[in-house]
Amino acid sequence: MTERPGAGERRRRRQGARGDGTTIRQDNQAPFKQPHLMMPPAHYVSADAVEAIHTTSLTILKEIGVDFIHPEAREILIKAGADVDPDSDRVRFDPDMIMGAMATAPATFTLHARNPAHNLTIGGDALSFCAIASPPNCSDMDDGRRTGNHADYRKFLKLINHYNIIHQCGGYPVEPVDIHASIRHLVALQDMVTLTDKVPHAYSLGPERIRDGMEIVRIARGVSDAEFDREPSMMSIINTNSPLKLDTPMLGGIIELSRRNQLVVITPFTLSGAMAPITIAGALAQQNAEALAGMAFTQMVNPGAPVAYGGFTSNVDMKSGAPAFGTPEYMKAAIVGGQLARRYNVPYRSSNVCAANTVDAQAAYETVFSLWGAVTGGVNILMHGAGWLEGGLCASFEKFILDVELLQMVARFLEPLDVGDPALALDAVREVGPGGHFFGAAHTQERYRDAFYAPILSDWRNFESWRDAGKPETWQKANQVFKDVLASSEEPPMDPAIREELDAFVARRTEEGGAPTDF
Amino acid sequence: MTERPGAGERRRRRQGARGDGTTIRQDNQAPFKQPHLMMPPAHYVSADAVEAIHTTSLTILKEIGVDFIHPEAREILIKAGADVDPDSDRVRFDPDMIMGAMATAPATFTLHARNPAHNLTIGGDALSFCAIASPPNCSDMDDGRRTGNHADYRKFLKLINHYNIIHQCGGYPVEPVDIHASIRHLVALQDMVTLTDKVPHAYSLGPERIRDGMEIVRIARGVSDAEFDREPSMMSIINTNSPLKLDTPMLGGIIELSRRNQLVVITPFTLSGAMAPITIAGALAQQNAEALAGMAFTQMVNPGAPVAYGGFTSNVDMKSGAPAFGTPEYMKAAIVGGQLARRYNVPYRSSNVCAANTVDAQAAYETVFSLWGAVTGGVNILMHGAGWLEGGLCASFEKFILDVELLQMVARFLEPLDVGDPALALDAVREVGPGGHFFGAAHTQERYRDAFYAPILSDWRNFESWRDAGKPETWQKANQVFKDVLASSEEPPMDPAIREELDAFVARRTEEGGAPTDF
Repeated sequence: MTERPGAGERRRRRQGARGDGTTIRQDNQAPFKQPHLMMPPAHYVSADAVEAIHTTSLTILKEIGVDFIHPEAREILIKAGADVDPDSDRVRFDPDMIMGAMATAPATFTLHARNPAHNLTIGGDALSFCAIASPPNCSDMDDGRRTGNHADYRKFLKLINHYNIIHQCGGYPVEPVDIHASIRHLVALQDMVTLTDKVPHAYSLGPERIRDGMEIVRIARGVSDAEFDREPSMMSIINTNSPLKLDTPMLGGIIELSRRNQLVVITPFTLSGAMAPITIAGALAQQNAEALAGMAFTQMVNPGAPVAYGGFTSNVDMKSGAPAFGTPEYMKAAIVGGQLARRYNVPYRSSNVCAANTVDAQAAYETVFSLWGAVTGGVNILMHGAGWLEGGLCASFEKFILDVELLQMVARFLEPLDVGDPALALDAVREVGPGGHFFGAAHTQERYRDAFYAPILSDWRNFESWRDAGKPETWQKANQVFKDVLASSEEPPMDPAIREELDAFVARRTEEGGAPTDF
Repeated sequence: MTERPGAGERRRRRQGARGDGTTIRQDNQAPFKQPHLMMPPAHYVSADAVEAIHTTSLTILKEIGVDFIHPEAREILIKAGADVDPDSDRVRFDPDMIMGAMATAPATFTLHARNPAHNLTIGGDALSFCAIASPPNCSDMDDGRRTGNHADYRKFLKLINHYNIIHQCGGYPVEPVDIHASIRHLVALQDMVTLTDKVPHAYSLGPERIRDGMEIVRIARGVSDAEFDREPSMMSIINTNSPLKLDTPMLGGIIELSRRNQLVVITPFTLSGAMAPITIAGALAQQNAEALAGMAFTQMVNPGAPVAYGGFTSNVDMKSGAPAFGTPEYMKAAIVGGQLARRYNVPYRSSNVCAANTVDAQAAYETVFSLWGAVTGGVNILMHGAGWLEGGLCASFEKFILDVELLQMVARFLEPLDVGDPALALDAVREVGPGGHFFGAAHTQERYRDAFYAPILSDWRNFESWRDAGKPETWQKANQVFKDVLASSEEPPMDPAIREELDAFVARRTEEGGAPTDF
């Protein structure tokens, strides 16, 4: 025979079409559990190559330097012994000083959620998936694309809370632009800590906002200032202004967050060919220099403060300047980024990204290539795990569900293979023998319910049944799933006293006018 | 800043939309070249686990045995010392006998194409991509789905010949059902060796057909019988009738092909839960038993004959019996299959497959997950590399182009990263400095033309330009590309004398009535 299925196989497929085996099962999800890497991360380049990138980045920091646009940050750098140019923002670093600072960064730590069942191990072989963060627009296939707004923001938070495969919040799943900038952080974080009970994220946009953010998270957890400072309870993504620049809001955020022992993820925004060299090795050397400068600074602020190495290097279309994601170059950068993070023994952050404008084949292949690079690279924190379209300019409800499917598949792939004697099934093969069939075997019957990953979107019906069902495409099923979930989602419980304290704080800060908008 | 692009980035994207950087470039392909694995294949399970699967499969072969439905095959097995039951088709093997036979199988060898520039290294770290093989139907988005036919068969051969990323023919890209079965192999192979100059495939469907196939391939190469027997010049996929059965046409094919030193790929059709145990470890143990029986048999026919280990284990939907592909279980089986093939030091065959019914997100993510498993597993021969839909029941012209894009991306991903000093770009970073931009840098200008993979389908335009262009989806671009390629494709040159000999042979065998159809 050849690999064209025989009559028996075709018959089984027709039966399948009549069964409900391939109908949508939107709530067929496993319990909340962090996946763990069961294979060592890849060595895409040699140890010598990692050292060459490392050495180049140290030369960049020593000879060229990085602009730190923040007076207090420069004071801290001077105290730490950095070479701070009095006539500019330029700061240069001695290699030993960088490596000395990096030595105090923890390899692994716990992020504490207001629901302890959602505490996270960050680092080592543990993975944590975040949803999309920071897009200015959102879309669904019913109402199309629109500017980010409060109502859609809350819907995405409900999806984040619903799906166990989303382990933490990576930021605002869409920017609620219709909330005034002075109080947006108050309303948005109040929603984040009430509509979800997972580890939250606050943006570093000036000292007032990040302080408000930390206070909201502290109140939601119901812990004292001392406990909050002892137990990292939130994350903030710090992007450098590539090339080689850290701006005022970001540096202010590092100072506030690292002082209070909260997680900072230093992520250079090094698009190869635009804000970084056109060679991936060069872009990685610059990424590494910026990451080292930012990570070392967190340790100068507070030795031992939790920090992670963010890799976001991708390439642009050199004919248009359009950023690309999930490309071969992106995959290489994602994997080597992980090798570099492990060189410094800190957790590694990568992303689940694409450049597609709709939930078509391109969105899927660029996304899975991104996941391939991230997982092979030993990612610890996966940003933008669900919902990302348009290179980050749009959060899609259908893409969110598609990504949930993909993340669940990756998690299942990472579950170690059982090779114990019952799994080796010698008795079942004896029972069935040559020419038999395993459907009826006891070994099969004992295991068929959860032997395999059960998809929420994948359509395994044969062509005829699929055609008769109206030829549904993946995005159409995803559209139905997200609406079903939103219709049935429940708010996670919160102690009324905590809720009262939280509302009172937000009300007071709102009365006070929130935060300045001239940052 | 955060990862939402700044104004400058948005401006560049708008400019990009006006440029042609993201328009279709259907012939933007690299020269014919086999990719090579630049990372060691993964150890998804431990060496002990590989041994447990190996040992279980040897126990299956010794205690349960395999049915060999072919009198001459049983004669060969008796001569080789196998335990052949005189009252049935059952054959049992001593482990030492299996391993002794496997010891003569070559680890690597060359497949000779009629165009020597398309010769292939099979085994080691070399990869070879085949197009889809054997679907009974085909489709394109203009004319829909139809039964396989001669005209579409020839179109797919032209695509196979056109794209350098397709290294060999894996079989009929679609079954030309409208050619009478008695002469189909003659017409189809005549087309395959004239419309392409890559290594061909012939099916094992009785001795007459495979002998005709070998003669057509020999004539097309213009070599003597002795040269043909010295130089493997074609491939044939041998599927077992799982569980534990090798049928008459397949065994006849092995005997004919291995005697003449042509490549046989033994591929058990072990769908976990249907024709194999529901546990992946059990399905792999059975796959391994069937593969070892078939591979060892090739060495009993002709020690040193080229043979490959085919892994095709996947799972079925237990509610419907529908086969699934590109699932987490499929990925595990693909990677561990590679570990087993290397255990016996023979080339490994895997596939690029999906269960989707159309070229949507599901088709893309199941396919890239399959590629992830195959590449991580150290695949040497990738079957069904381009065009596969519906679990192998349909060849899609649009999926073919989508897969060409994906295979080209994988090949680019496997190109080692340049970490030499020029690539580390220290001077470029010096030149640009903090806050600058790399577009204008000399380092960029020298490299921008081919620094990054240039896609044939991926649309990197921003939303507005993509919307104004009519919101094209991936399959629509693929539809245009395959038609453009067919409109411009050229037949590879062939010596007129060889062409004459080929036509005369096919005419004579056709007059003789071709081959029996009662196999």
